[in-house]
Amino acid sequence: MANPTAKRRIVLLGATGSIGESTLRVVAAHSDRLELVGIAAQSNHARLAEIARQFNVRHVAIHDETACTAARASSAFPAGTKIHGGIAGLTELATLPEADIVLIAVVGIAGLAPALAALAAKKDLALASKELLVLAGKFVMAAARTSGSRLLPVDSEHNAVFQCLEGCRTSDVRRIVLTASGGAFRDWPLEKLARATVADALKHPNWAMGPKITVDSATLANKGLELIEAQWLFGLRAEQCDAVLHAQSIVHCLVEFTDGSMLTQLCPPSMTFPIQHALLYPARASQPTAPALDVGRPFALDFRPVDEQRYPCLRLAKESMRAGGTAPAVFNAANEVAVAAFLAGRVQFLAIPRIIEHTLATVKLIEPTALDQVLAVDAEARRVAQHFPA
Amino acid sequence: MANPTAKRRIVLLGATGSIGESTLRVVAAHSDRLELVGIAAQSNHARLAEIARQFNVRHVAIHDETACTAARASSAFPAGTKIHGGIAGLTELATLPEADIVLIAVVGIAGLAPALAALAAKKDLALASKELLVLAGKFVMAAARTSGSRLLPVDSEHNAVFQCLEGCRTSDVRRIVLTASGGAFRDWPLEKLARATVADALKHPNWAMGPKITVDSATLANKGLELIEAQWLFGLRAEQCDAVLHAQSIVHCLVEFTDGSMLTQLCPPSMTFPIQHALLYPARASQPTAPALDVGRPFALDFRPVDEQRYPCLRLAKESMRAGGTAPAVFNAANEVAVAAFLAGRVQFLAIPRIIEHTLATVKLIEPTALDQVLAVDAEARRVAQHFPA
Repeated sequence: MANPTAKRRIVLLGATGSIGESTLRVVAAHSDRLELVGIAAQSNHARLAEIARQFNVRHVAIHDETACTAARASSAFPAGTKIHGGIAGLTELATLPEADIVLIAVVGIAGLAPALAALAAKKDLALASKELLVLAGKFVMAAARTSGSRLLPVDSEHNAVFQCLEGCRTSDVRRIVLTASGGAFRDWPLEKLARATVADALKHPNWAMGPKITVDSATLANKGLELIEAQWLFGLRAEQCDAVLHAQSIVHCLVEFTDGSMLTQLCPPSMTFPIQHALLYPARASQPTAPALDVGRPFALDFRPVDEQRYPCLRLAKESMRAGGTAPAVFNAANEVAVAAFLAGRVQFLAIPRIIEHTLATVKLIEPTALDQVLAVDAEARRVAQHFPA
Repeated sequence: MANPTAKRRIVLLGATGSIGESTLRVVAAHSDRLELVGIAAQSNHARLAEIARQFNVRHVAIHDETACTAARASSAFPAGTKIHGGIAGLTELATLPEADIVLIAVVGIAGLAPALAALAAKKDLALASKELLVLAGKFVMAAARTSGSRLLPVDSEHNAVFQCLEGCRTSDVRRIVLTASGGAFRDWPLEKLARATVADALKHPNWAMGPKITVDSATLANKGLELIEAQWLFGLRAEQCDAVLHAQSIVHCLVEFTDGSMLTQLCPPSMTFPIQHALLYPARASQPTAPALDVGRPFALDFRPVDEQRYPCLRLAKESMRAGGTAPAVFNAANEVAVAAFLAGRVQFLAIPRIIEHTLATVKLIEPTALDQVLAVDAEARRVAQHFPA
């Protein structure tokens, strides 16, 4: 464990994505307390080289082997940089002896093996990749319990719940309600949704994110995945996890206790808030990285229930959460395939929930006892989703 | 200390007032975990007798000696009721060997001696009387530190801050912002305020309370007193305590941490929420006494800065808080005299801040080293305020 007065040493898997870039801002703003010791990405080695120079990082991993070979041949990295390749390379980074905490912000399940390795090596884990808990919550939570590592959520909603539950007992929680902006189509007439284009879906009202998660925000599939994550992270029952529409994305959760009291966490919609909380926990940053909410000016916070007619993907996510076992993995795989097809122009926006519903109804539900079973179900769900007659 | 599986045994000083009545609802709703062992009031012995019968309370105290004599002569109390009289009687109740926690909900400084006695007897203290901390914060906090007793705030705002700070370090707090409904005149044209009547001032938008505190809500003097209380309770500097207008009285505080993250506590405006929290702490009630916030229906939360032109009493309270020493006691005494004069029809609404300002400017500020000094300043401030040429 780190000396509390020493810098927290961070391995960042997914350094070139949106979360990665926010993390770099946080590390730069708090360089007296945070230090990058390893960075990894799928393939963007040019950007990795820039980051390695700027933050003086010695260990780099590149998932894509071709990109890794190109990186090793280039002269862009500082002399002495160790370049690791493939999933094995990501795993080497996640278990670096000098690392205190590993932030998993890679897309998809590429982060799973490194995350489990980091836990086995007793590293703290900051989690930004949804798939890890949605697919492998059972195994990741068991590994965290065994190692005694901290599991620090980086999603703004889960980080908010984590902050609200500080010093509280989970048995006192009646339920948690995650907030959802409602995405690009929150205020569209329902009958217009069939004609929604990719460009329409990518107009998120509050957050600047990648295309997959922006579409997931428009369908609320993203919120569904977050409910499943929350269930694992906080040890709740499916019926204790719900969502509410909140247009401003300032309140990130509502935690309702059995006595009727609620706690909420507020901050402007910038990922730097949850990232700095996770990286510095249990300490807090002495100043925000992005401007904090200004209560010196009027502001309003609006909440309304989710209409599951408008957002069938949320209903399907909740159904998969209640079904348990491999159902959330099937939901996730079918959604990924459906969103990719929508982004590629192959299916209409309203086909997304139909593809998920079909796949959930088709793939056999099991209670997995090993990770391989989940990965096999994931592959099977992708095959079923891909063959849906759009 | 109480056996955690046994009932929490409560002494309630101020059983017949607004907080007292809410407390009785809480005790009745959670009779498996809470038990009244002593009740006290200023003079309303008929109501005390009803409560004693309903809750099977053995110890009763009556502050007013005449009322006490009448009570002893009446046959309204159950046989075997022990009736204590005067401040000495209240103090006897506050130190009952069988009591675990003493709730101080009496008006004015009558609760001070019993509160200090309860702390000396290592009872936990639930605090609803503002004056204790405003006048004697230094002495009450020192007594609580010495005894190791818990000081549990019952005001909705302070209880909210207490909940938000659970598991947090005060050094991580940038500031706390208490919410204020803005009272009866929130939306009045400023030029109309000079003609505000008592009936106007008593129309509180959200809370049903006594006349003094309802006027204090219309002037925000109440919020000023709460800022002073908060400073003591949470060990903050004056500049860390502020207020914001929040029309709905659902969010009771905003706690801003150094990293820009905020925690807030929400519940409908019913005193049963903070009372049950304080009485059951660190456990939580298994169900609310009053209905919780329904997130299944749309709701809005609005915030705007306090206009100190409209609310000069808040400015004066903050000035007294920054001045420290006996200044808050002077603010409180002058405000009490001014509000009583307004309620009696002797002065206009806008005279309230003028009386306070005059008194603060007139009474000499000292840093008290003994309670007697504060009480002398309190008496002096009342004299000065009473002689203000209205």
